[in-house]
Amino acid sequence: MSDFTPRPEHKFTFGLWTVGNVGRDPFGVPTRAARDPTDTVRKLAEIGAWGVNLHDNDLVPGDATPGERDRIVREFKQALKDHGLVVPMTTTNLFSDPVFKDGALSSADSRVRAYAAQKVMRAMDLGHELGATTFVFWGGREGSEVDGALDARDALARYRESLDFLAAYAEDQGYPFRFALEPKPNEPRGDLYLPVVGSMLGFIQTLAKPERFGVNPEFAHDTMAGLNFVHAVAQAIDAGKLFHIDLNDQKMGRFDQDLRFGAENLKTAFFLVKLLEDSGYDGSRHFDAHPLRTEDEEGVWDFARGCMRSYLILKDKAARFDADAEIQELVRAHRVVDDRLDGYLASYSAESAERVARRTFDLEALRQRPTQLEKLDQLTIELLLGAR
Amino acid sequence: MSDFTPRPEHKFTFGLWTVGNVGRDPFGVPTRAARDPTDTVRKLAEIGAWGVNLHDNDLVPGDATPGERDRIVREFKQALKDHGLVVPMTTTNLFSDPVFKDGALSSADSRVRAYAAQKVMRAMDLGHELGATTFVFWGGREGSEVDGALDARDALARYRESLDFLAAYAEDQGYPFRFALEPKPNEPRGDLYLPVVGSMLGFIQTLAKPERFGVNPEFAHDTMAGLNFVHAVAQAIDAGKLFHIDLNDQKMGRFDQDLRFGAENLKTAFFLVKLLEDSGYDGSRHFDAHPLRTEDEEGVWDFARGCMRSYLILKDKAARFDADAEIQELVRAHRVVDDRLDGYLASYSAESAERVARRTFDLEALRQRPTQLEKLDQLTIELLLGAR
Amino acid sequence: MSDFTPRPEHKFTFGLWTVGNVGRDPFGVPTRAARDPTDTVRKLAEIGAWGVNLHDNDLVPGDATPGERDRIVREFKQALKDHGLVVPMTTTNLFSDPVFKDGALSSADSRVRAYAAQKVMRAMDLGHELGATTFVFWGGREGSEVDGALDARDALARYRESLDFLAAYAEDQGYPFRFALEPKPNEPRGDLYLPVVGSMLGFIQTLAKPERFGVNPEFAHDTMAGLNFVHAVAQAIDAGKLFHIDLNDQKMGRFDQDLRFGAENLKTAFFLVKLLEDSGYDGSRHFDAHPLRTEDEEGVWDFARGCMRSYLILKDKAARFDADAEIQELVRAHRVVDDRLDGYLASYSAESAERVARRTFDLEALRQRPTQLEKLDQLTIELLLGAR
Amino acid sequence: MSDFTPRPEHKFTFGLWTVGNVGRDPFGVPTRAARDPTDTVRKLAEIGAWGVNLHDNDLVPGDATPGERDRIVREFKQALKDHGLVVPMTTTNLFSDPVFKDGALSSADSRVRAYAAQKVMRAMDLGHELGATTFVFWGGREGSEVDGALDARDALARYRESLDFLAAYAEDQGYPFRFALEPKPNEPRGDLYLPVVGSMLGFIQTLAKPERFGVNPEFAHDTMAGLNFVHAVAQAIDAGKLFHIDLNDQKMGRFDQDLRFGAENLKTAFFLVKLLEDSGYDGSRHFDAHPLRTEDEEGVWDFARGCMRSYLILKDKAARFDADAEIQELVRAHRVVDDRLDGYLASYSAESAERVARRTFDLEALRQRPTQLEKLDQLTIELLLGAR
Repeated sequence: MSDFTPRPEHKFTFGLWTVGNVGRDPFGVPTRAARDPTDTVRKLAEIGAWGVNLHDNDLVPGDATPGERDRIVREFKQALKDHGLVVPMTTTNLFSDPVFKDGALSSADSRVRAYAAQKVMRAMDLGHELGATTFVFWGGREGSEVDGALDARDALARYRESLDFLAAYAEDQGYPFRFALEPKPNEPRGDLYLPVVGSMLGFIQTLAKPERFGVNPEFAHDTMAGLNFVHAVAQAIDAGKLFHIDLNDQKMGRFDQDLRFGAENLKTAFFLVKLLEDSGYDGSRHFDAHPLRTEDEEGVWDFARGCMRSYLILKDKAARFDADAEIQELVRAHRVVDDRLDGYLASYSAESAERVARRTFDLEALRQRPTQLEKLDQLTIELLLGAR
Repeated sequence: MSDFTPRPEHKFTFGLWTVGNVGRDPFGVPTRAARDPTDTVRKLAEIGAWGVNLHDNDLVPGDATPGERDRIVREFKQALKDHGLVVPMTTTNLFSDPVFKDGALSSADSRVRAYAAQKVMRAMDLGHELGATTFVFWGGREGSEVDGALDARDALARYRESLDFLAAYAEDQGYPFRFALEPKPNEPRGDLYLPVVGSMLGFIQTLAKPERFGVNPEFAHDTMAGLNFVHAVAQAIDAGKLFHIDLNDQKMGRFDQDLRFGAENLKTAFFLVKLLEDSGYDGSRHFDAHPLRTEDEEGVWDFARGCMRSYLILKDKAARFDADAEIQELVRAHRVVDDRLDGYLASYSAESAERVARRTFDLEALRQRPTQLEKLDQLTIELLLGAR
Repeated sequence: MSDFTPRPEHKFTFGLWTVGNVGRDPFGVPTRAARDPTDTVRKLAEIGAWGVNLHDNDLVPGDATPGERDRIVREFKQALKDHGLVVPMTTTNLFSDPVFKDGALSSADSRVRAYAAQKVMRAMDLGHELGATTFVFWGGREGSEVDGALDARDALARYRESLDFLAAYAEDQGYPFRFALEPKPNEPRGDLYLPVVGSMLGFIQTLAKPERFGVNPEFAHDTMAGLNFVHAVAQAIDAGKLFHIDLNDQKMGRFDQDLRFGAENLKTAFFLVKLLEDSGYDGSRHFDAHPLRTEDEEGVWDFARGCMRSYLILKDKAARFDADAEIQELVRAHRVVDDRLDGYLASYSAESAERVARRTFDLEALRQRPTQLEKLDQLTIELLLGAR
Repeated sequence: MSDFTPRPEHKFTFGLWTVGNVGRDPFGVPTRAARDPTDTVRKLAEIGAWGVNLHDNDLVPGDATPGERDRIVREFKQALKDHGLVVPMTTTNLFSDPVFKDGALSSADSRVRAYAAQKVMRAMDLGHELGATTFVFWGGREGSEVDGALDARDALARYRESLDFLAAYAEDQGYPFRFALEPKPNEPRGDLYLPVVGSMLGFIQTLAKPERFGVNPEFAHDTMAGLNFVHAVAQAIDAGKLFHIDLNDQKMGRFDQDLRFGAENLKTAFFLVKLLEDSGYDGSRHFDAHPLRTEDEEGVWDFARGCMRSYLILKDKAARFDADAEIQELVRAHRVVDDRLDGYLASYSAESAERVARRTFDLEALRQRPTQLEKLDQLTIELLLGAR
């Protein structure tokens, strides 16, 4: 039996808001007390996490005086130092305050937009002070229910302007942030602009400095839209834009569940872990999930340990998949390489086009070629179930 | 009462495969006979369409001899000429033939990829001969059910290579095509790569000649994923990439219904028409829908007339929306402009950043500002219902 | 132009919790102040509502002393009297308190079940005191995320036992309630038991006194599961079980939006209103929706007025549909009656079976018979849009 | 390692239409040849199946003469005998023929209804001749896209009349069938009446002889609507109505995928197998799935073997779950029994009501009680993954 003990080198991170979630939902009041951030640091270190991430207000209340702010940050940094944790990523809460009820960085109100920008600037200052190198934007209120009020093109234009401004600010301050945009299809707004990973990849190209921006895909978010999350992350990697990742779980086509990683879609979780490991992704494995509302304090840590443990079990499965001779034979057989044809397609010339155009194919053979996909998939399932 | 008679200047187009759909579905055999393409041309002209679009095999059977092919094309062009119809867009059927059962331009089999490329080249030759200037790629088989067989990054790499090759072919031949990539989340494959409009916008940036490529969003496709189609089209326009559009309808979260335009989501259809008209989009209004399987020949044309008529009614509603004083007052009030703040955000400088950072906002006022969105939305609904 | 002014005879009702919704959501704090129930009564009367419904704790806080409780109820009854409003339906809040975090009437904990029953008994006392004749059960916490803990059969058995106990209590007290069970597929629990209207219809037959129980279908709830809400309500009416109805709106396959009635699915809303009116349903037209979180006090009443106004507009459309000669001709033609065959099917006998078995059908004619459904649907859409 | 070899005592069955699926889909022509039914019998016996199920036309073509029909049936029975297979269930194809394009047993056309009834009577004769004791009704065309044509109450009334007639026919003939109604939310129709398991349970109570009718839940069907299939089957068992079951798999919120059992939702499949085994269900474990369109003949049998093997692996997991001391301790702890309170709730009396009403509960303790659900769920996942 392999060892599934989480250790800092696995780069597991949690948000203060995840293990700190108090169990409020649209129909119920909190079931758990708020947690002291420094105590969360201690506890995360104890269970083997590498880092802790945060929104500005997870650490510093919105109404803190400058003096309180400095004390809170000082004590938090001390806790990080004491327990050996890092803060790889920070972000801004642009969704809780009613100020942002109809948008923040894309709001139709100049004052709201400017206030949101101010809040992000301060959150960047905080993030830099804590040593974060990734800065996430999740536009939880950048969306609409009433499309009559506003042309979505205007909302996109404003959002772009705000992001360009803020990236310039970071550069000006010498903050080495990589910005990771996090999409979500809906909730809390009826529809969020730039709803899925692909949308963000497209949008980034319209920014002033696309090279500073990448994505922060969240498992549950593309899954809410019924999309294949592994494909979405693969596209982000393909585009050189996987700057961060949020791991959790979710059933398709429903409210944002933020379940424990590996709780629901085991096969997708497996292929995701395999993709991250195969691709050489070396960033945080960040869990943006929360314990069920039914849980008490002990349940919170059962939840956190479970996220990490499932990742490690699936990572071990990925290695077994690569080492499984029968599986690998099927994978190899699935790929049919014709070097000459590949050469033509890889490099266009009038001649290569001519070759492709004149080629005669044995269509009947191609129609009947075996793919052995049912077999491969069944072996994958059996490997996942520990039955091979 | 306005005039809702479709005329060529409205640029309505139908696919041969749409009014020619024979009513087969996964559980039933055809209910209608196949249509003769030249007769479809005659009929479409009669009901006021501007053009007709086609896949290669909608016109020329896959097993036609060169002589048959030429005769078919000649007769079809004559019909176009006789009836005054154009062919603004053509595409390739890369999904019906079992050759493509596990992918076409992204297949793991070099031979399939090359054959698909050959088929596209011929379809381009045909499209150019028919005068088409838009060439669509819909990757109906570019996807997977069994992710173990193939890293999605490899599939994307192959798809990119194929598209680059084919764009080079078109350029080499002097074909003035604009290429429009059409996304779909799933069906017929379990998951299709590049599932929604945003995904395609992201992918285009990784192609060798991104300027030649745009998107062909389909109403039903992003809607299958529960996304806001108006937002998706707005993003495409914002990126300068709306090269074509497929109009139809669909309930969210189910199989590809391809319903008559305006049949289901009236509010979304309204905002879509408004966006197209407001944006100055001057391409085809293409209906990629099909008559219900219950319909006979007469029902086919009821269907086609209904698509166009609903577009014109909604276009008229859009004009009324713009002319409605009470509605416009609400739209104006929703936008709060502060020129100074806007100036800071629009143009970053250390000084503008300083101004934003030091600004004091009356947060309580911002929290309580009225948005009047319920009122605006209700007026929109009443306008749609003809009750104002 | 028809008159769309809501009046008491239209039997429009709102929940205290609907217009009283404070705009909290999973990501944001309230945007509106709590409302005084007596003032809500005044305001609802002013805008033309007939009645007001409530959960126990919408009116009486959970921690009120008996004296406070009596004062609150007295003042509320006075307000009802002063403003001429009725309370046709009441229900119990079995979801907000963390006590119910893992179920209420179906909980695996005897104490929770008994406490929930106690709370319902008190809510029944209150409801009866207020004159309510319909009592709703919505099991917002009767569900699960972790199916390993509990066999769903046990949960159903406990839920049944609790309902039987409570129905007996009501009978014993002489309360003339009709009980209406309200299904929902998910949220706040991952999955709720008895998720849709049909599930409740099935479950009712397993209760000790099925005749006392019916359903309270909610537009948004079955719609979350992508089901046709009109069909669901039709089944409830067919079974004689439509005891109450919750009107609102929602996009399919997402979180519980509780949008203004008529805000999203106009066609479904139209057929629903038509069904209610055609069927002679004479109960409340209850709006279980809430204003968008963006709205202030004025927006709350825009919302409430909009719900009623859209109902009346759609009711007027339903009458126009029935009076439209072209539409009615299509409806008539769609139905083909053969009295002899109908007679056989309506009343089985060996002879009628023999007649059906030996009948020769002209299958080709049946295959080709026109249905004219595209035409009828287009006329319906045009009628909805006010274009006929 | 346990033995996962399928054997007849496991009661695995396949439909002729499942392993015989030719790989046609809405966008592609067949990829596999049609299979000879007698050869399918031979092959199914060889891989360990117990039985084979069929629609009338899977075995007997619609246009077979009586002589051909008898020969086909005779040869098929001989094959069953030769290979030791049974036919536990049969059903009627009421969906392929264009006759049924707008409904079959619920059609608005008397002739279609009567023809459908005739076809079912003949299918019953065939089923009885083959020894089937379960007869399934799947109303694949009993639905609508255009609700204006027909009040759903009328469709339900006609469907009921047809079922009552047919049940009387079976009784009259002495056929000992149990009738199993199979729901599906949509596809091929836009919406199917009686869309999910619960709907059928409700509908059955309105039939003339409800005791003869139960349900045939299909994993993929309720899953299309995003519902928890285990809960649906539990409700059917609770109501004594689980007469048959269709095992396969599916992603939520999309077209009917009919994937190999265990291919997608491993956790749901696990709890389903556990429920079937725990409940003592002794009917067929019927696989109503089909091989991916990519597969050739060999892939068909890989698919079939995979279905059975995954069932057996999950059955083994269910036994391990029951034998796992740590898991069982959590399950026990989750249930809190208070015999006195349970006694009150189980048997209403004025006195027991009084006891419940007067009881004082320690609400704070109930709010804070541990549920340990995250821990239990994590252990379940680890058991599923073979990591415990």
